Amino acid sequence: MKTGAIVLLAFLASGICWAQAPADCKPSALNIPGAPYPCVFPDHRASFRVSAPDAQKVRVRVGKGFDMTKKPDGLWYVTTTPLVEGFHYYMLNIDGASVSDPATNSYFGGGEWSSAIEIPASDAAFYSHQDVPHGVVREQWYFSTVTQKWRRAFIYTPPGYDTNAKMRYPVLYLLHGWGENEVGWTNQGHVNAIMDNLIAANKAKPMLIVMDNLNAVKPGENGSIYNARGVLTEAVPQPQAPLGGAPGVPGAGPRGARRPPAAGARRPMFKLSNTFTEMMFTDLIPMVEKNYRVAPGRENRAMAGLSMGGMQTFTTGLDHLDKFAYLGGFSGNCGSFGGAAFDPKTSCDGAFANPAEFNKKVKVLFLSTGSVEGPRVKEFSEALTKAGIHNVYFESPGTAHEWLTWRRALQDFAPRLFR
Amino acid sequence: MKTGAIVLLAFLASGICWAQAPADCKPSALNIPGAPYPCVFPDHRASFRVSAPDAQKVRVRVGKGFDMTKKPDGLWYVTTTPLVEGFHYYMLNIDGASVSDPATNSYFGGGEWSSAIEIPASDAAFYSHQDVPHGVVREQWYFSTVTQKWRRAFIYTPPGYDTNAKMRYPVLYLLHGWGENEVGWTNQGHVNAIMDNLIAANKAKPMLIVMDNLNAVKPGENGSIYNARGVLTEAVPQPQAPLGGAPGVPGAGPRGARRPPAAGARRPMFKLSNTFTEMMFTDLIPMVEKNYRVAPGRENRAMAGLSMGGMQTFTTGLDHLDKFAYLGGFSGNCGSFGGAAFDPKTSCDGAFANPAEFNKKVKVLFLSTGSVEGPRVKEFSEALTKAGIHNVYFESPGTAHEWLTWRRALQDFAPRLFR
Repeated sequence: MKTGAIVLLAFLASGICWAQAPADCKPSALNIPGAPYPCVFPDHRASFRVSAPDAQKVRVRVGKGFDMTKKPDGLWYVTTTPLVEGFHYYMLNIDGASVSDPATNSYFGGGEWSSAIEIPASDAAFYSHQDVPHGVVREQWYFSTVTQKWRRAFIYTPPGYDTNAKMRYPVLYLLHGWGENEVGWTNQGHVNAIMDNLIAANKAKPMLIVMDNLNAVKPGENGSIYNARGVLTEAVPQPQAPLGGAPGVPGAGPRGARRPPAAGARRPMFKLSNTFTEMMFTDLIPMVEKNYRVAPGRENRAMAGLSMGGMQTFTTGLDHLDKFAYLGGFSGNCGSFGGAAFDPKTSCDGAFANPAEFNKKVKVLFLSTGSVEGPRVKEFSEALTKAGIHNVYFESPGTAHEWLTWRRALQDFAPRLFR
Repeated sequence: MKTGAIVLLAFLASGICWAQAPADCKPSALNIPGAPYPCVFPDHRASFRVSAPDAQKVRVRVGKGFDMTKKPDGLWYVTTTPLVEGFHYYMLNIDGASVSDPATNSYFGGGEWSSAIEIPASDAAFYSHQDVPHGVVREQWYFSTVTQKWRRAFIYTPPGYDTNAKMRYPVLYLLHGWGENEVGWTNQGHVNAIMDNLIAANKAKPMLIVMDNLNAVKPGENGSIYNARGVLTEAVPQPQAPLGGAPGVPGAGPRGARRPPAAGARRPMFKLSNTFTEMMFTDLIPMVEKNYRVAPGRENRAMAGLSMGGMQTFTTGLDHLDKFAYLGGFSGNCGSFGGAAFDPKTSCDGAFANPAEFNKKVKVLFLSTGSVEGPRVKEFSEALTKAGIHNVYFESPGTAHEWLTWRRALQDFAPRLFR
């Protein structure tokens, strides 16, 4: 038992080694099992701890940067100013190296695997698992004839899908944001808990939710949304307030550098957008409708997305209103015109030129943002209303360009679908 | 379009910034989209690149440590000696900070989110997606009355599960290793591709595979398998060759420090083991049999696991042969006796004391290891055979205590089940 004894001692030692966080600093819900840091104080200040014995300078960037200080125990610490409620990607900077914090779970955002901290929301129950029937999220692989690659989609099937063998379900196609991937809506967004709770409360209709990856390029095509990751040593010039998010807003990416293209930059995105649209209609939708019990027709099909996913939704959806009766843009849409004013006749490629026809076709046009993101989405909604375009505007109070804003947007959007 | 123009330029710049890897150094399959490093040479040497402008010392630990060198471009580089074929967790050390490499996808191993590199296997086709019918992996949440927590299980359902509404399926309960979690068999193990290919070739029976988390502790109970993560500043003494793996074998964990308890250390694990066993019979199996179309009885139920998951399989399974007709230990079992010789009457708590009875109950007892892991598992299999216990021994040629060994073990084990 010698070996065993050594390990037992080691485990005991490891227990003893724990440096406890202040009693009123609660470990973030996103920490790896047992990690006391990062932790969050009641006033939403956060404390971070890092082991970097020989480092000269250690910083944490959570929205803005905070220098860390080495304490007598040899570990680096910092307590931030109060952070905005919600989910925030963050990265450490250790002697110039931007790396994730080993103390938290890892989330794909900003085109890389990032650390994250959750500043608890007062309304967390709506996206938490409750004692209600649970649907499942299915990892579904399929081959894309357009990209000539295997793709992975995640598909939420509601409670009862397996047992109601005759029932056919409407489908929401739901997209992530720039630098994220098809797992974001489950791991960061808690889409399954949100829908389970809404369906149990009879607030939303049982539906399928299909979550695929925005990235779709043909062989030889150059248009990956992750290319910015190539910049290893220099910062990318920051566009001002892309997608309605103020520069440096937590959640806009693990570093202030490397931003998504602003909504104004539609031309450089068209190639990507068109390939995604082609892939969606050629491969994704047919795969879903072949393998799942889907209710037919545009009135049973919705599309929505967050940030760049909202831009993609408008790019794809406005050109194909024969395919979708519901469109949602969460902190992203076609409503940025390079500073120019909204022109109902020409903006968004003239999709709103005929309000009567548009209102007849689109049962719900949903626009949302976080109140900390700025007024752009609200102004766009008002401009549409002024032009006679029916739309729903939802604002998440006190949240930024991050996942709590988008969880709340889904919570408000889903009940409006397929009525 | 000013904003857009800036971003477009930034994207072009990012393209120009790419430092290309040597032509014969192919990016690892586990890299984030577009990352040229780490890359693998035909002779299985690997090159790593890290941006750490102000660091004094940068190392990569992939099995053993390799010091990196700062080149004129300001980036740190190293090319390793040839690495063993397969999947290897690794971590960077930047001025003493052990962190993951932002260039790769993130995998939960060693109790934290780790980087990984895949040294291509000649037989990679068996765990790659092929043009065959695909099953799905379902993320299934359920509440455990034993741990009083919500738990997440992943459940593979084979092709046809949705359409053959009358068919009931046998179930394999399949466990991850120390410091890993319930997603390991999908993300690191490619369980879905392996099973899809076996079933399409009519080599394995369609079955459900349930993958849960080894970690199961009651409220107030101290026994997390992740506790070792608490050691931030000092290394845990290394047990020699735990679970048959040689010290420092790639894949045994991102660092040589922090090892799983050796198989000999069953006592300190019993508390954990007993709680997992109780949770499995009280919560997991009933949840699966309530929500999925499961064929009844022990002859339709198998249990297997890798490394610590193999130890758990033997701990749970040998005590409950009324529940399981098939047991598999991949690089982990009850076959370590603190150096003592195997005694059929007493070893493994006397589970093998009556060979005739054991052979009647257990249709397949499967033991496997990688040839680089050492002779322990083979010796255990031979001792069992000598004692009259029927067992199957499988050895993965040229692989270590890592996922390629376990993918191949599943590939050999699954066809033997439910015949």
